[in-house]
Amino acid sequence: MSEKYTIGLDYGTDSVRSLIVNVETGVEVASAVFNYPRWKDGKYCDAPKNRFRQHPKDYLEGLEFTIIEALKQAPSGVAENVVGISVDTTGSTPVAVDEKGTPLSLTSGFEENPNAMFVLWKDHTALKEAEEINELARKWDVDFTKFEGGIYSSEWFWAKLLHIIREDAGVFRAAYSWVEHCDWIPALLTGNTNPKTLKRSRCAAGHKAMWHEAFGGLPSEEFLTALDPMLAGLRERLYKETFTCDVAAGTLSDEWAKKLGLPKNVVVGVGAFDAHLGAVGAEIEPYYLSKVMGTSTCDMLIAPMDEVGDKLVNGICGQVDGSIVPGMLGLEAGQSAFGDIYAWFKQVLEWPLKNILAETELVDPETREKLMEETSNKIIARLSQVAAKVPLEESGIVALDWMNGRRTPDANQNLKGAIAGLNLGSDTPRIFRALVEATAFGSKAINDRFMDEGVRIDGVIALGGVAKKSPFVMQVVADVLNMPIKVARSEQACALGSAMAAAVVAGVYESTADAQKKMGSGIETEYRPIPENVEKYKILYEKYKKFGKFIEFDYE
Amino acid sequence: MSEKYTIGLDYGTDSVRSLIVNVETGVEVASAVFNYPRWKDGKYCDAPKNRFRQHPKDYLEGLEFTIIEALKQAPSGVAENVVGISVDTTGSTPVAVDEKGTPLSLTSGFEENPNAMFVLWKDHTALKEAEEINELARKWDVDFTKFEGGIYSSEWFWAKLLHIIREDAGVFRAAYSWVEHCDWIPALLTGNTNPKTLKRSRCAAGHKAMWHEAFGGLPSEEFLTALDPMLAGLRERLYKETFTCDVAAGTLSDEWAKKLGLPKNVVVGVGAFDAHLGAVGAEIEPYYLSKVMGTSTCDMLIAPMDEVGDKLVNGICGQVDGSIVPGMLGLEAGQSAFGDIYAWFKQVLEWPLKNILAETELVDPETREKLMEETSNKIIARLSQVAAKVPLEESGIVALDWMNGRRTPDANQNLKGAIAGLNLGSDTPRIFRALVEATAFGSKAINDRFMDEGVRIDGVIALGGVAKKSPFVMQVVADVLNMPIKVARSEQACALGSAMAAAVVAGVYESTADAQKKMGSGIETEYRPIPENVEKYKILYEKYKKFGKFIEFDYE
Repeated sequence: MSEKYTIGLDYGTDSVRSLIVNVETGVEVASAVFNYPRWKDGKYCDAPKNRFRQHPKDYLEGLEFTIIEALKQAPSGVAENVVGISVDTTGSTPVAVDEKGTPLSLTSGFEENPNAMFVLWKDHTALKEAEEINELARKWDVDFTKFEGGIYSSEWFWAKLLHIIREDAGVFRAAYSWVEHCDWIPALLTGNTNPKTLKRSRCAAGHKAMWHEAFGGLPSEEFLTALDPMLAGLRERLYKETFTCDVAAGTLSDEWAKKLGLPKNVVVGVGAFDAHLGAVGAEIEPYYLSKVMGTSTCDMLIAPMDEVGDKLVNGICGQVDGSIVPGMLGLEAGQSAFGDIYAWFKQVLEWPLKNILAETELVDPETREKLMEETSNKIIARLSQVAAKVPLEESGIVALDWMNGRRTPDANQNLKGAIAGLNLGSDTPRIFRALVEATAFGSKAINDRFMDEGVRIDGVIALGGVAKKSPFVMQVVADVLNMPIKVARSEQACALGSAMAAAVVAGVYESTADAQKKMGSGIETEYRPIPENVEKYKILYEKYKKFGKFIEFDYE
Repeated sequence: MSEKYTIGLDYGTDSVRSLIVNVETGVEVASAVFNYPRWKDGKYCDAPKNRFRQHPKDYLEGLEFTIIEALKQAPSGVAENVVGISVDTTGSTPVAVDEKGTPLSLTSGFEENPNAMFVLWKDHTALKEAEEINELARKWDVDFTKFEGGIYSSEWFWAKLLHIIREDAGVFRAAYSWVEHCDWIPALLTGNTNPKTLKRSRCAAGHKAMWHEAFGGLPSEEFLTALDPMLAGLRERLYKETFTCDVAAGTLSDEWAKKLGLPKNVVVGVGAFDAHLGAVGAEIEPYYLSKVMGTSTCDMLIAPMDEVGDKLVNGICGQVDGSIVPGMLGLEAGQSAFGDIYAWFKQVLEWPLKNILAETELVDPETREKLMEETSNKIIARLSQVAAKVPLEESGIVALDWMNGRRTPDANQNLKGAIAGLNLGSDTPRIFRALVEATAFGSKAINDRFMDEGVRIDGVIALGGVAKKSPFVMQVVADVLNMPIKVARSEQACALGSAMAAAVVAGVYESTADAQKKMGSGIETEYRPIPENVEKYKILYEKYKKFGKFIEFDYE
């Protein structure tokens, strides 16, 4: 058996998946999924306060389970022919670690302390601290936020650290250093978790921590201590360099090779973000916007360095050399809520089910549960069916998609959603349709910004749950963007992208583009704009912008 | 048996009620209700197009049934001691009649033609025609709309006539004249339906048709024919005078006395609007705003003629000499939707029940129906309970109550509702609370207008379904208005007000105030503003106004 395989390991918000891929044919030979058990139970989180933490044990148990399980399912002979493993995770998702690089929550005394766990990307407890960083950055002689579109986010590294200083100084003092989730897993697998020497990722440890070559690395000691004197000295215990995902973090340690049943010479790649390797898996190419469309969106575009050069795109999340595809400039934007807005509306509609039907005595408790579940599960699909038939000019409802703030263009997490144009005939499908249109308008605002700033967009490649499951939403987005949208075939684009990255790291391919050509699974379907709708949406989009400007500048 | 009784007959939107009251003690000795059968079946209406018509047979059958039924239930001896009957109805609700005053839909060839039926107050088919009237009025040398706050409504007489001309000229040509519902019933009972001599009401036939003493009656022939040449000559076949409800229309005709089992000398009063006699029944007094709070609101204030004089209150629906209490100036405002906004939200929430649960096969069809009904019926009450506990500062959602346009201040039926300040934590009770607050803010905008225009408000007297059934809503309104609200005790204030009017017409009392003193049922409860909430609502109300100004001037 001469075929070679790589493993892509994809840590999402709720679960981790491993995928074993034939590097020559791209055939996905086996995969396994593991739902984080503590997370599923809502442990260490406080949703109304937007506190979301994950225990390292959820990650560790998932690492072992998914790889061993996938290897079990794979044909015999696959395990010994695995040549590389790469990892993607959510982020910025940092954790406080001790001198050995062990997360504090795996050490004595901190086992149940949420502040000693991974601070998940979507944790918004650091809103205030992000504002502090932005205020200081605007006054500082060097603008450390300039590669973040000028606005540092509460979802990122330094804001989260600052918040832990303010909320739980004990944890902060006990920490020797801090590590991102996507850097900790490769460090673990290669047996080098030393915070000063483990290989850090270009986007997670780089961009999200305001690291840039132009600054000679992380923001200066002066800047950091001006933020908080307690940060003094930490910079030295962090890192000077960051790496793209075509670089090896090392090879599998004896311990992990044995544990997983893999050869010792398996190369482990430097980690990356799930969205970025998702874009790779969905075969991102220059000037095609890759949209990961799920609860929120992550919109990514790559361009040759020399074509964009030093030009900064105003108001987007970031532009990072090699963050998505090594050797290319990665430009990144996104919407703070996308599918989450539909889920919110569903929750609003579920209230009578969960609060009134839930108490009925007309049927037995078991039937009651089933009725609630059956009704609830069908809401979005049925609403989509009916909403798709609402004639476009009829509704007149216009909504703003800022129910979770606005990520781009021009990040502002204090913004809120709104709905205008309601009358007594505004029924549930019409409101749903307006919400779908709002998310599409939010996408258009991002496209417009790229183009206004001189970065062309040749097309859109979509992936993620919404792209795969919601033809109604996708058609609206295509109509609003006035741009065809290709939906990637792979059901697990992130894990596939990781497997591609692993193939490059293991030396099977010279470049990401080569790996994509051989291992890619292509396009499943394409949504083309309907010219009649395009014209109507142009008018509605003007209303969206006008309404948005009012809410943004005059109202809040 | 020396006691005397009067009958109040109250024609609402869905049903007619008769109430027999002891004029000395105010004791309500019997009552009966009749739901319009054709209306209940949705006949002659087209709700999505806002076409609402009622067949005269619905009124006729209700007239006979409710009076005969109430008399049956009354102690023996009551019938022969009835001294007066007065009638209130919705309006403006005009109908095309022949030379004898018979509604065309009771004549051959027009039986099933909705344009030959009563055009119900809330019929909005004449939006365009109302605009035509307003345009012409603004150009005319005499401003015939000046007692309507400068804006003529699509819900009123001339707009509805014009619409019938445009839509069904055959009906218009076949009509000799037109009569309001509240004038037709007394005409019928007294046996004088001659359109030229039947006694017309001050507000329905007066104010709603731009009749005013200052103009010498109805708008000039020139104005009317400029609106449409087909109106030529109609003015002469209408009326020159209008009357307040303390004037007798006549006495019961032989035919009706016999049919109903009442003495022939029973005096029948000139008709009036339901809201106006409702305010009388709820014991309206000078400078107390009487709010009829139901699907919409009708807000009424009376003031001595000499204290307000010729001053016009800008942007309210109307000010009419004697429309509410004879001898007093009646000032009238209102909100186009109040309880209807809660009903709309309920409908939005019901969608999963009516479209998904309705198809479940987990339970039998009968249980399914019961489950839907049980759940549906509890929505508003349960939401109110939960919403009442939401801390005031927490929500931050601000809504506009214009889902059915805006009646006052400054009528604009093209305006629409809106909701701002939504985030992913905006749950159903919080949205409901914001909608309730929006209706309260709409009330405050009316109060403010009265006061800004120099008409003081000493307090609020509330009646109607919302006032009686929704303590949560009433407390919010009291907090927002920063004014105590007394809720009238009577469960049938309109019918009681009619019975009071009948007692004045029959000569039992000299004035409405005297009848109120003897026959009134007083105050049931009083809502007092909570100082802490008052302060918080002041801030939210500023947001409401700012949001409203944007939607009104910039957005639509």
